[in-house]
Formats: sequence, C-alpha cells, structure tokens
Amino acid sequence: MLGIDPGLTRCGVGVVDVAPDRSATLVHVGVVRSDPGSPIESRLATIAAGLRAVIDEFGPSVVAVERVFAQQNMHTVMGTAQASGIALLVAGERGLPAATHTPTEVKAAITGYGAADKKQVQAMVVRILRLDEVPRPADAADALALALCHAWRGGAAVAASGPLTPAQRAWADAERLARR
Amino acid sequence: MLGIDPGLTRCGVGVVDVAPDRSATLVHVGVVRSDPGSPIESRLATIAAGLRAVIDEFGPSVVAVERVFAQQNMHTVMGTAQASGIALLVAGERGLPAATHTPTEVKAAITGYGAADKKQVQAMVVRILRLDEVPRPADAADALALALCHAWRGGAAVAASGPLTPAQRAWADAERLARR
Repeated sequence: MLGIDPGLTRCGVGVVDVAPDRSATLVHVGVVRSDPGSPIESRLATIAAGLRAVIDEFGPSVVAVERVFAQQNMHTVMGTAQASGIALLVAGERGLPAATHTPTEVKAAITGYGAADKKQVQAMVVRILRLDEVPRPADAADALALALCHAWRGGAAVAASGPLTPAQRAWADAERLARR
Repeated sequence: MLGIDPGLTRCGVGVVDVAPDRSATLVHVGVVRSDPGSPIESRLATIAAGLRAVIDEFGPSVVAVERVFAQQNMHTVMGTAQASGIALLVAGERGLPAATHTPTEVKAAITGYGAADKKQVQAMVVRILRLDEVPRPADAADALALALCHAWRGGAAVAASGPLTPAQRAWADAERLARR
C-alpha cells in the first residue's frame, strides 16, 4: 500500500504492508522534493521520476493519494492539484489502481475521530507501525496515515485479485463513484 | 509551438508554425479525449499518452498551457488542474520549455482586447491561420489561440537557441517568475 501526500516542494510517500488481520508494518517512508527555483515543468518531471522510483523499488499493489480541495491558498492549491495529478498518472501508467481520500477520512480512519489534530494522527501512526518516533517531515507521516487509511477502508480487499464478496464489491463500487 | 487547453474529458491541442515576421501557419489541431467512465488514474494516463504522441509527431520546441484558476466549479477545476499538471509534465519529460497563460492574456494577445468573447477570439484565429472555418470542438480552437499567444508574447524568442536581446531576456525572466 503506497500513500502519497501530494505537494510541489515536498511530496510525502509512505509504503506499508497490511496483513489480513489489519496489522501493519512500515516498509518505506520518505519525501520526493523538487527545487522551488526550477520551472514548473521540470519540478513535475522530478516528482514523477521520484514517485516512479518508489513504485519500482517497493512494488505496491495500490496507490492512495490525498484528495485536494481548493479552500486554502489558491497558488499552493494549484501546485498541489498538479502534483496529485502526477501521483495518479504514475499509478495509472504502472497499471496500479488508485484512490483518493480526504484529510477528514484519513483522520477518522486512523484515530476514529474526523476532527482529530495532526499530533493525534501522528501518535496513532507511530503506535500502529510500532515506530520509535514520528517520521519527519510531516508530509512523510501524512503519507503513512493515508496508506493505512486506504488499507482499512477496504483498499486491501479491492486490490486483491480474488473474487470480491458482495459487500466488498459494493464498497469498491462506492469508492469508484467517489473518485469521479 | 504547441498550445494545450487542459481538460480531463477533452484536452485541446494546437500546433502552429510561427515565422520571424510573426506570420503563422496551422500544423495540427485536435483533441485528446478520456472516457469519463474510467478511473481517474487511467484517464490521466490516456491524456499523457495522447499529448506525448502529438509532441513526438510534430516536434514542437515550446509548449504553452492555459493557466487554471479555481473560480469556477470546484470539481471541474481540480480535474483541469490535474490535466494541466500532466501537460506540463509531458513537456518537462521531453525537455521542452513550458509556459502558462491566463485566458485574459490569450484574448489580449489575439484580439488586442482582454475582455473579448470566445467568438471574437475564434474569428481572429481563423483569420490569422487563414482557415476556412473555426476548428471544432472549442477546446481545439482555444489551444490554437494559446499557441499563437505564446508565440507573440515572446515565446518564440525564448525558445530560440541564440542569445537573447536585453528586452527578450527581461521578458523571459518575467515569464519565469510568473510561472512559479
């Protein structure tokens, strides 16, 4: 399960292995950076190359990307939306299914509480993955939370190659609709 | 000069050849489509493949992409922003410089009037390129207007490999800054 917290300057990436019993193990956590002084087309190419390298090294079966909203600073949001497009594209080009989750969905899945603050989410990520400390920078921790959220919301079942149960199929259909 | 009017369902592409005397010739005009029923990751991969095919066939030296704003419908804007990210990425991966222009800049460059309506812009595109009719769909005509705008705003000079005049350099610097 690969989680991506999209951003132009820092794109958080987190890979976790989730067992059928929902226990999770950290595989990789990091950040793909691009130089704010470079032209946008080079920055996006750097991000795409960095994400492809992560996929090729760790071979995730699913990619989860944080869903971008345009409530915040307009300039930042456009860059973030473009980076999220690159993340989804790279998944599609590698033949991997992708899904997006809102920050609220991630918080609810990880802490049981959609209005949880960043520290609560980070503390839960540390506990779930049995880490010694919170991964830095925050984008990297967010990417892990996203990957865990996706696994627990049925992503692991959707990604499995076997036939789906009716409940799994209903969930997968709902996810597909939500992604449009 | 390749102009791209980004969109998830229809991505307009227009290639024009601009001579040093600013006279312009149509090379290619078309639309890259993606199926609204497909998952977003497949749609973005389809758009990337279509844009790469246009670049590889017509070998533009510069790519101009319409700049996206988040004033309109939120859902549409995010898809458009992601498609614009793909357009810029594809340029970057092919080593081509890219620039973005706002709709107002395009209108002003083509008609001399930033508040011109779509029909005025289309009529000027037809006249400039000596066409028999307005290219359909509208996204394709918009892409041609964008390519012409970029050529006339100094893009051709920026793209040239020769040394820039001080005025051209100042313009190129301003464009670079505006793109951040």
